[in-house]
Amino acid sequence: MDLTTLTNRIAPPDSGAAAGAQQLLDGKTKPPGSLGRIEEIAVRLASIYRATEFTTSPRAVIVMAADHGVARQGVSAYPQAVTAQMVRNFAAGGAAINVLARQLQARTEIVDMGVAGANDWPSAVRRCAIGPGSADLSIGPAMTVAEAERAIFAGAAIVGELAAAQLRVVATGDMGIGNTTAAAALTSIFTGSAPAAVTGRGTGVDDRGLAKKIAVVERALECNRPSVHSPLEALASVGGFEIAGLVGVILGGAAERMAVVLDGFIAGAAALVAVAIAPAARGYLFAGHCSAEPGHRAALRTLRLDPILDLGLRLGEGTGAVLALPMLDAAARILAEMASFESAGVSGPGV
Amino acid sequence: MDLTTLTNRIAPPDSGAAAGAQQLLDGKTKPPGSLGRIEEIAVRLASIYRATEFTTSPRAVIVMAADHGVARQGVSAYPQAVTAQMVRNFAAGGAAINVLARQLQARTEIVDMGVAGANDWPSAVRRCAIGPGSADLSIGPAMTVAEAERAIFAGAAIVGELAAAQLRVVATGDMGIGNTTAAAALTSIFTGSAPAAVTGRGTGVDDRGLAKKIAVVERALECNRPSVHSPLEALASVGGFEIAGLVGVILGGAAERMAVVLDGFIAGAAALVAVAIAPAARGYLFAGHCSAEPGHRAALRTLRLDPILDLGLRLGEGTGAVLALPMLDAAARILAEMASFESAGVSGPGV
Repeated sequence: MDLTTLTNRIAPPDSGAAAGAQQLLDGKTKPPGSLGRIEEIAVRLASIYRATEFTTSPRAVIVMAADHGVARQGVSAYPQAVTAQMVRNFAAGGAAINVLARQLQARTEIVDMGVAGANDWPSAVRRCAIGPGSADLSIGPAMTVAEAERAIFAGAAIVGELAAAQLRVVATGDMGIGNTTAAAALTSIFTGSAPAAVTGRGTGVDDRGLAKKIAVVERALECNRPSVHSPLEALASVGGFEIAGLVGVILGGAAERMAVVLDGFIAGAAALVAVAIAPAARGYLFAGHCSAEPGHRAALRTLRLDPILDLGLRLGEGTGAVLALPMLDAAARILAEMASFESAGVSGPGV
Repeated sequence: MDLTTLTNRIAPPDSGAAAGAQQLLDGKTKPPGSLGRIEEIAVRLASIYRATEFTTSPRAVIVMAADHGVARQGVSAYPQAVTAQMVRNFAAGGAAINVLARQLQARTEIVDMGVAGANDWPSAVRRCAIGPGSADLSIGPAMTVAEAERAIFAGAAIVGELAAAQLRVVATGDMGIGNTTAAAALTSIFTGSAPAAVTGRGTGVDDRGLAKKIAVVERALECNRPSVHSPLEALASVGGFEIAGLVGVILGGAAERMAVVLDGFIAGAAALVAVAIAPAARGYLFAGHCSAEPGHRAALRTLRLDPILDLGLRLGEGTGAVLALPMLDAAARILAEMASFESAGVSGPGV
């Protein structure tokens, strides 16, 4: 695969289908616009699927896991071993994302993008590890550009496989001790915000831990000198293997004309990179929710995406993306099932 | 039935079960509090059901419809006939609430609380009409206190029947041309806000229509002189039959120890009345969403309820309540299904 080949496949969504959906909605038995963002989601989905009738099932959440060399700087409240332990928890079906994916009928794809330590994974785990965790981004690049590309292709390939199996929606998920540090560095680059403004407590570091984490992000940007104009290089220098994999999921989803529902802060960082690489990908993205991590709101502003939910989640794993799926389902069903003023014999305004 | 008998059955939710649920959540494989409001909803549901394991199914949305004499003042963009037409649309399954209730597996109970005109309803419509629409609240009381009580008892009786059938959650819905005018008057009384601050465009009146509507609400308050200290009388003077019915749904839900998910502005007005009558009912209420109607935010502030969704909906019918149900389902499932650090062999912070 080649990155240009992938990005060349991404065409903007279809404005004609969007207009058709809007017209259909305006004839439904409700005051115009009264279903608010559900209508906006319906119009955007129509533009993505190039049709005014479509389904949002089957769907999957792709949970990408990797370790981060920067974890050794003490930027997380949890030890690095938790990444591998949580991958086993995902495989056993016991994590929050498993519970929510079962509830909302999303297939769960668990992907080892580069988890440190033993890799005798259960068969439910896809083995796409680029290496045993990224290098410490605070003292040099997290990975090579070639590794970043390999991770992107791995993500895009999984989505390609899901698209071939007729999946309609992909939600992003992530796990990686240390990954809010990498996401903060990327968010700082692509939003132009200072590290202190976009670095949060992640899994729950205290004030001292937060100060240390901000300093680590500052050092990462100083020593790597990433630029918004070289998004692939920026990703390689301060990203992570699961973040690069999610860039591939986003680009692959857009190329396959699937709706891509982003989870929180990590997904937002991946989306900033993906949209910098291929601006047309933006039309395929939904922000499932707004995370409690302070940098996420800055990322969504730059991405010009309004979050669907705002529930103070800060868990990751794809939880906020999967919880937003019922709103996409509602949009599809309103278009398909709701009566029109004409069909139901209901009077319009002022009649 | 007697109002005091009903309100005497309302006990506050159980703080012991709430503490048990919080403890259980803190042992789950996630950073403490990282599921944000889903955790808060889980804790509140536990306090309502007096248990840390519970189900949020089966459930129903009760859509109460009535006409409003004040409609003759030209306060709506739609003619009064739309109320009855929409009741038929509900019975035929073609309205937005039908679509969403099917999606989210809520039973739909359609209730004629006082729709004007013909009442040869299909069998799906419950016949609880107090009269052929309320009187014009801008020139006198909308109904008598006895009528308000009868409407409350009708609502509570429906919930009692659903509770006997083991339903666990009730969502409120409403339909009634003119009912945002009644809701604005009630919201003004119980929030202490001026009519202009809590009166909105409803189904979509223009600037002149809005000015007229505000004047109508002001006249209603001047001629009826309702008081926050006599909530039943205030409801009778400026309410509506479906709003009074929803007061009964709320009080009945609290008496039956069911979670009650409120829809938007009309439900908020009913909740203000219900909580003024029986303050302990508040512990059973969830605000499904925040409506685009400006007065709803004021109502939620007074009720001290944070909306679960904020999607710019302003349709009513129970749409915003039903769309919030997946968040209650998620809360129940997280408590019941998610692994603990111990059971999954995952390390805690700093271990």
